[in-house]
Amino acid sequence: MAQENKAVRECAALRTLVPGERFCGCYLLKSASGATTGAGKPYLNLRLADRSGELPGKLWDYAGPVGPADAGRIVWVSGRVETYQNVTQASLDALRLAEETDEVDPSRLVPAAPYDAGQMLDYVERTLGKLADADYRAVCLAMLDRHRAAFSAIPGGKTMHHSFLHGLLMHTAKMMQAADTLSRLYSDVIDRSLLIAGVFLHDIGKVAEYRTTELGMISEYSAEGQLLGHLFLGAEEVGEVAREAGIPEEKRMLLQHLIASHHGRPEFGTIVTPRCAEAELLANLDMIDSRMEMYRKAFEETPAGTFSRQKIYGLNNGTIYRPAAQSESEAE
Amino acid sequence: MAQENKAVRECAALRTLVPGERFCGCYLLKSASGATTGAGKPYLNLRLADRSGELPGKLWDYAGPVGPADAGRIVWVSGRVETYQNVTQASLDALRLAEETDEVDPSRLVPAAPYDAGQMLDYVERTLGKLADADYRAVCLAMLDRHRAAFSAIPGGKTMHHSFLHGLLMHTAKMMQAADTLSRLYSDVIDRSLLIAGVFLHDIGKVAEYRTTELGMISEYSAEGQLLGHLFLGAEEVGEVAREAGIPEEKRMLLQHLIASHHGRPEFGTIVTPRCAEAELLANLDMIDSRMEMYRKAFEETPAGTFSRQKIYGLNNGTIYRPAAQSESEAE
Amino acid sequence: MAQENKAVRECAALRTLVPGERFCGCYLLKSASGATTGAGKPYLNLRLADRSGELPGKLWDYAGPVGPADAGRIVWVSGRVETYQNVTQASLDALRLAEETDEVDPSRLVPAAPYDAGQMLDYVERTLGKLADADYRAVCLAMLDRHRAAFSAIPGGKTMHHSFLHGLLMHTAKMMQAADTLSRLYSDVIDRSLLIAGVFLHDIGKVAEYRTTELGMISEYSAEGQLLGHLFLGAEEVGEVAREAGIPEEKRMLLQHLIASHHGRPEFGTIVTPRCAEAELLANLDMIDSRMEMYRKAFEETPAGTFSRQKIYGLNNGTIYRPAAQSESEAE
Amino acid sequence: MAQENKAVRECAALRTLVPGERFCGCYLLKSASGATTGAGKPYLNLRLADRSGELPGKLWDYAGPVGPADAGRIVWVSGRVETYQNVTQASLDALRLAEETDEVDPSRLVPAAPYDAGQMLDYVERTLGKLADADYRAVCLAMLDRHRAAFSAIPGGKTMHHSFLHGLLMHTAKMMQAADTLSRLYSDVIDRSLLIAGVFLHDIGKVAEYRTTELGMISEYSAEGQLLGHLFLGAEEVGEVAREAGIPEEKRMLLQHLIASHHGRPEFGTIVTPRCAEAELLANLDMIDSRMEMYRKAFEETPAGTFSRQKIYGLNNGTIYRPAAQSESEAE
Amino acid sequence: MAQENKAVRECAALRTLVPGERFCGCYLLKSASGATTGAGKPYLNLRLADRSGELPGKLWDYAGPVGPADAGRIVWVSGRVETYQNVTQASLDALRLAEETDEVDPSRLVPAAPYDAGQMLDYVERTLGKLADADYRAVCLAMLDRHRAAFSAIPGGKTMHHSFLHGLLMHTAKMMQAADTLSRLYSDVIDRSLLIAGVFLHDIGKVAEYRTTELGMISEYSAEGQLLGHLFLGAEEVGEVAREAGIPEEKRMLLQHLIASHHGRPEFGTIVTPRCAEAELLANLDMIDSRMEMYRKAFEETPAGTFSRQKIYGLNNGTIYRPAAQSESEAE
Amino acid sequence: MAQENKAVRECAALRTLVPGERFCGCYLLKSASGATTGAGKPYLNLRLADRSGELPGKLWDYAGPVGPADAGRIVWVSGRVETYQNVTQASLDALRLAEETDEVDPSRLVPAAPYDAGQMLDYVERTLGKLADADYRAVCLAMLDRHRAAFSAIPGGKTMHHSFLHGLLMHTAKMMQAADTLSRLYSDVIDRSLLIAGVFLHDIGKVAEYRTTELGMISEYSAEGQLLGHLFLGAEEVGEVAREAGIPEEKRMLLQHLIASHHGRPEFGTIVTPRCAEAELLANLDMIDSRMEMYRKAFEETPAGTFSRQKIYGLNNGTIYRPAAQSESEAE
Repeated sequence: MAQENKAVRECAALRTLVPGERFCGCYLLKSASGATTGAGKPYLNLRLADRSGELPGKLWDYAGPVGPADAGRIVWVSGRVETYQNVTQASLDALRLAEETDEVDPSRLVPAAPYDAGQMLDYVERTLGKLADADYRAVCLAMLDRHRAAFSAIPGGKTMHHSFLHGLLMHTAKMMQAADTLSRLYSDVIDRSLLIAGVFLHDIGKVAEYRTTELGMISEYSAEGQLLGHLFLGAEEVGEVAREAGIPEEKRMLLQHLIASHHGRPEFGTIVTPRCAEAELLANLDMIDSRMEMYRKAFEETPAGTFSRQKIYGLNNGTIYRPAAQSESEAE
Repeated sequence: MAQENKAVRECAALRTLVPGERFCGCYLLKSASGATTGAGKPYLNLRLADRSGELPGKLWDYAGPVGPADAGRIVWVSGRVETYQNVTQASLDALRLAEETDEVDPSRLVPAAPYDAGQMLDYVERTLGKLADADYRAVCLAMLDRHRAAFSAIPGGKTMHHSFLHGLLMHTAKMMQAADTLSRLYSDVIDRSLLIAGVFLHDIGKVAEYRTTELGMISEYSAEGQLLGHLFLGAEEVGEVAREAGIPEEKRMLLQHLIASHHGRPEFGTIVTPRCAEAELLANLDMIDSRMEMYRKAFEETPAGTFSRQKIYGLNNGTIYRPAAQSESEAE
Repeated sequence: MAQENKAVRECAALRTLVPGERFCGCYLLKSASGATTGAGKPYLNLRLADRSGELPGKLWDYAGPVGPADAGRIVWVSGRVETYQNVTQASLDALRLAEETDEVDPSRLVPAAPYDAGQMLDYVERTLGKLADADYRAVCLAMLDRHRAAFSAIPGGKTMHHSFLHGLLMHTAKMMQAADTLSRLYSDVIDRSLLIAGVFLHDIGKVAEYRTTELGMISEYSAEGQLLGHLFLGAEEVGEVAREAGIPEEKRMLLQHLIASHHGRPEFGTIVTPRCAEAELLANLDMIDSRMEMYRKAFEETPAGTFSRQKIYGLNNGTIYRPAAQSESEAE
Repeated sequence: MAQENKAVRECAALRTLVPGERFCGCYLLKSASGATTGAGKPYLNLRLADRSGELPGKLWDYAGPVGPADAGRIVWVSGRVETYQNVTQASLDALRLAEETDEVDPSRLVPAAPYDAGQMLDYVERTLGKLADADYRAVCLAMLDRHRAAFSAIPGGKTMHHSFLHGLLMHTAKMMQAADTLSRLYSDVIDRSLLIAGVFLHDIGKVAEYRTTELGMISEYSAEGQLLGHLFLGAEEVGEVAREAGIPEEKRMLLQHLIASHHGRPEFGTIVTPRCAEAELLANLDMIDSRMEMYRKAFEETPAGTFSRQKIYGLNNGTIYRPAAQSESEAE
Repeated sequence: MAQENKAVRECAALRTLVPGERFCGCYLLKSASGATTGAGKPYLNLRLADRSGELPGKLWDYAGPVGPADAGRIVWVSGRVETYQNVTQASLDALRLAEETDEVDPSRLVPAAPYDAGQMLDYVERTLGKLADADYRAVCLAMLDRHRAAFSAIPGGKTMHHSFLHGLLMHTAKMMQAADTLSRLYSDVIDRSLLIAGVFLHDIGKVAEYRTTELGMISEYSAEGQLLGHLFLGAEEVGEVAREAGIPEEKRMLLQHLIASHHGRPEFGTIVTPRCAEAELLANLDMIDSRMEMYRKAFEETPAGTFSRQKIYGLNNGTIYRPAAQSESEAE
Repeated sequence: MAQENKAVRECAALRTLVPGERFCGCYLLKSASGATTGAGKPYLNLRLADRSGELPGKLWDYAGPVGPADAGRIVWVSGRVETYQNVTQASLDALRLAEETDEVDPSRLVPAAPYDAGQMLDYVERTLGKLADADYRAVCLAMLDRHRAAFSAIPGGKTMHHSFLHGLLMHTAKMMQAADTLSRLYSDVIDRSLLIAGVFLHDIGKVAEYRTTELGMISEYSAEGQLLGHLFLGAEEVGEVAREAGIPEEKRMLLQHLIASHHGRPEFGTIVTPRCAEAELLANLDMIDSRMEMYRKAFEETPAGTFSRQKIYGLNNGTIYRPAAQSESEAE
């Protein structure tokens, strides 16, 4: 059915490979298990993955060293795509663990935020650096120093929303922009420095709550994450840093309160309910950004003028509608 | 205890009057009831009110025409403040219903929004007039034409928040500003014209839901308001106007959905839960603006560095904290 | 295993066909997909259905015109039943879309109410025609004129109860009978005309809420149905018709209230809770009729003296018991 | 102010007495307390009550024997109505405990059902006597024999609904009428004998749950009523009676189930949720009759065309509306 | 692959059998179905089970008498373990229903409590026999006499906890030990005799609520169990026994209350909420013992230092953590 | 009415003073306000209080220095009890703030635990000192060193339970005794050292959560207490102390988890739900001890054989029953 194709595609997205094509490059090894042919020859069953999808494969006459224990690691492979019993699969001729010189771009293998991580981090850092209140500024910058790498790399969650590289950073940066304008709109009750500090710190405990794979995706929750939760972990560490920085007790307490209350309601796992205006606004901005992101993700699979095929738990557990009508572009 | 004061204060705030002072001017007659002295002479027991508070009073040797049926109306009085059995009260010497020539300023007698109503209405009208989408614009302007006077005059609620003159207008205008910036931040999922139209229309049904006093405050809910609610009333009328305007069915349906879903959750009385991004964002902006306003109101009676004395039902049913710490002003 | 049978059964219930039998007639085409044999010949995989069940089948050497796009339509087929790998299937020799001259009886293909639709509609129409109150009567008859065909044809729901042809009509007619007697029993608080009008109108919005297949079953909810719901849609249209008919405002409002409140409790999606006696009674009659119908349906698969095999969501999410004991017939 | 009136009104409703009138007769003594005048003379402060309301009073120069311990008992008094400090009160000249020869009609002193108790009991008894099923009939008649007096006398509840003499009987009789017609409408799932037996027995445990005053009103719950509840008490006793009567085990179990499940939902205190059709229908009829009665009671204080002044807990905790519109009488 | 093994293992745990081994003994026949080979010969497909697991098997050239109807019964088999298409299975050469002389030990075939049933029963009986209060003691001993065999044999539940032989006895005995010490700690409010009687009686209704298999495991709930529940059934029978024993009414009522309230909260199916100290403590001890047992069971599959792989519904519906840290043994 | 009594009672319980008696001693000054007689003479209105109750009083011809600002402090007074307009009050002749030499026993003025504080503290300290696990022991002893005074002095709560001096200590000591025995009963899943450490630490955050009066009663919550709560404050500090002590990370995390989860369910304000056996048991022991103490307190005002007059919020929001039946004393 598929004709032979002599060219070798390098680092091609798996979903774009068609039977007959040859390919090579680095991919994520999702799983691997040794087996034996009827004729007694060892071979390897495996699954390759990149951001575009997954592909099952076989490597004949192979007894190692790569095996089941390498699941989750990156491998370099070369082979050919074929169809067997209606299933598209790869027939490999070479396989080895990736090496430093392979220079793998993680965002080719796992999903990443749709914005440039460097620019987002820059925005966050600049905003914090210009906070009017020296105390809140000091705590934020100290926390950023402690966690810059992880903060700008990890996803924002496991499945619900922002579950891609730099997801936490994107979530934080977007909320910071919203906080910036709303703090001016409600300046009679909102202390802008406190609100923006709260936005930056609210999910910082996720750095300790998650365990990530080699490629930066969340593999599971840490024991600490499960037994204490990111609200507690974040508020606890911020308390420590605030005390080290010697800021006034009330400010330290307010920062901790914003973190501890940002899930809003007991049934959402908040430690306390919001008791100051900045905490209340922060909890609402968190909800807005999470839900807008869930819509963005749902739109990827929902044509205009239709409802999503699945109910979305975080969006009132219903299907969502993507309007067909497009307003004309703004004439401003 | 109080010495005699010969000057007559005109239209003074009731809370500022002290025993011994003479006063005159227009006030709200909260209640009135006829009585008879031990000597068989008729007199009137009454309560005056203005925005600053209330004052009980008596008018001796008076048998009408003003009486209990005039409660809630505006009267012109003149009299003197005295103390009787530890209670400060007014001893009146004249009383009549207010007349047109008295030129009463309602905002002296009942609370009003802390912003200029004209400017807010102007902002709303200009924003609607520039909506990129001609269909949504047409419906909004038609609804504004129908209800301009009431929309810009009535309170936003009976007790919870924005319960003062122009409250609905202030609530709408503030949300519109927030919607303006957030629609740009989330432009990949939000149709700005639809969102802003939804903000303008979301509470328009309150015009039919409330009954107001002569002075524009809410006295009670209308029968229609109680039996159908402002979500239904607003969505129903907008459907009618949209059909008259001949806009596409999907747009009509979306406008109705935004109104019908803006209370967000069934336990908050929503007709349906939000099913499109604009509806979701609208429900959240409504919550933010209501709660920020509740904070603003609570701050009036909560000194910095303390908790409010009462639990506030709409704010997680807890006391709220007003921080003492003030961040330095922004250096931008 | 199965012996040959020369007779051809016409329009036989699919569940009654056994291997070896020949058959022909009109059936519902549930699905169809083209395929190719090992030898490169095209054929069609399909599923036939009628009210009794489904039957997979194959039509060899066939490349159209009937194909996947015809799923949900009625086809005329002829063929033979056989067993292949333990599965009973049809081997067809002819297939075409049904034509008018085939005179298909929908109730052979999809489930229908266990009562005669004509008689039920007649009862409803007569009852409405005799309503003592001319205003309520006028609105009901106008609504019946608008929707007679759909009202008497569509199911009452998608899965929970009355999910068969004429289901809405049966649900309405049964409730009307109950309302008739209970309105007399509680005549000191119930206005019979209002209650019966409410019964007729309460689910009329379902006409707009559902999308139906060629055979009249519900395929999905309309966009309007999902974004606004049948309570809103019904109450909105009744408001429009009532205004056209010029009935008093209070009566229009009461009719709308009965529709808007008939789901009783916020967690059941009611727009408002019942606030008048007729609304309260209507909500309860709706619950009774739905649940009695769920019992009737459950009894079809539950032998006397046993519990249903499955929990039934709408019946307190439990299994139900069908008593073995039968009281002697009444001697009256 | 009030002129003297020489006639003595006997057994007049307290609410109809006006200052200046003389009266005598038997009344309920709500409370009594001895006191002493400034001149050292003993007198009695007391409150009289009948079904129409209450009246404070004084009996001068009285030191007993009637006193505080007689609160709740019936007394014969004679006296005169006067006004003192704007309060209407009775000045008595005679007071003694009521005697048998006074032949007090309890329904003059405490509220009673608006139907004739004898006729209601007769209807219930006749209906039970004609039950088609001999087993259910036997149990019902045995229970009626055990509790005829209390069953037909006690109120149906303490405050919520049917809180008047014969209230339980009225509640039962009304439900029985509704059950009679609905059991025919749903005869494919409902065993009429079982349903009607369940109606009769469902609240029979209230006989043991309440403690009543001399006049038959509920004074408090019995210890057994509080620790086990009338659902348990009723189902337990019916089990005992059914076993004595030797009816089949399944029927005994079904009767107990109907009683044990008639509160419908766990949050309403049901022992189990309804699991058979008769139990489901019974729970709904109980709700209908309770709520219709709450409406009937609310109408006594709600003019047509207005809302009740108070929220009514049992009616969705809202105010209720009594329509002004009256449909023309039925022309049948 | 597996070499031949001539020895025959008797009554070996199924999980320990390896391909090549011969075995014989009594096992549970989980299921059986007749089939025919391609060559037309009848054979039996079956599944054997014991406490260690299950094993599929085949008995060639067999047409009965053992067949599908014997599923759930105990059979004696002999055969050989082999591997076919990667599945380990038994190839039997003999099969018959177990006979009395086979002297099967049920605990070899189904799970049993990890404590000696005789000792536990002895402890319970001794404790009851020494109860200080003669009335409570009499009722408990009478109930024990009625149900000794079933009480000490049946599981404590179907799946949640104590779902093994003697589970109810173990649950009761453990709670009795806890009740013993806590009744002394809280002796100012707790009557020890009442509490311990309540512990013994609280789940006694399970004897009537469950139906058990030949081997004593729970197969399903009885009709009575589903329609009335073990709280009702237990409290009803205890009431009967208490009345027969002639103990004071208050004590009878308290025993019934402890049983009727031991599920604590309406959403957990309690008949009434605890209203005396012993009932409150009993409900808490029941919860403690259930949950500690769920932990004990979860530990069997959770290595130290890890979380359970599954969420556990009864343990806050979360995964549980088994600490790695082991405190040194107590030096007392 | 009351005769003169020449003796002066010293430090008498206020509730025992009768009109005519003279008294002197130290009391709590609940409130004080200056006033002026008709004749223009200054005097002081005040309320005295001790553990037995309150007594209003007057001090004539007094203009200070004691005044309103001294409310909540202890004063020495001397005076005489009299009756004025049916109210018993004190007529003082002397008043001054208490001095050190007055040697006031706080437990005379405010309620205290019914056990000896020294013995309870001794028991707690000894138990912690003997903990088998050196790590948990170290953290507990360090925490005890930090907070010994406050821990053994403050109440356990503001109103619900243990709201008296040494209440927290009593609550902790009782739970420790229960934990001691239950940890042995469930030794297969419970690490006794961890459980007992958790019991000691679970409410330690209350030391920071409350603000206390001069006499040690809780006057209000601290800002930190309201914004973060005692679960957070305790877990945070224990984390700090555990890190200082250098115990293994897992043990530190487990201690924090036990504190953070001890309220059990989200609606009770827990930070996380219990995820290990010790946390689960701790949450249950906390509930048991709180509720047994609520019963102990309720018994003080509930005669045997009756129900409490009030519903008790923390005891299922119902009235509670105190049995009349007393089991004979145990014969062991």
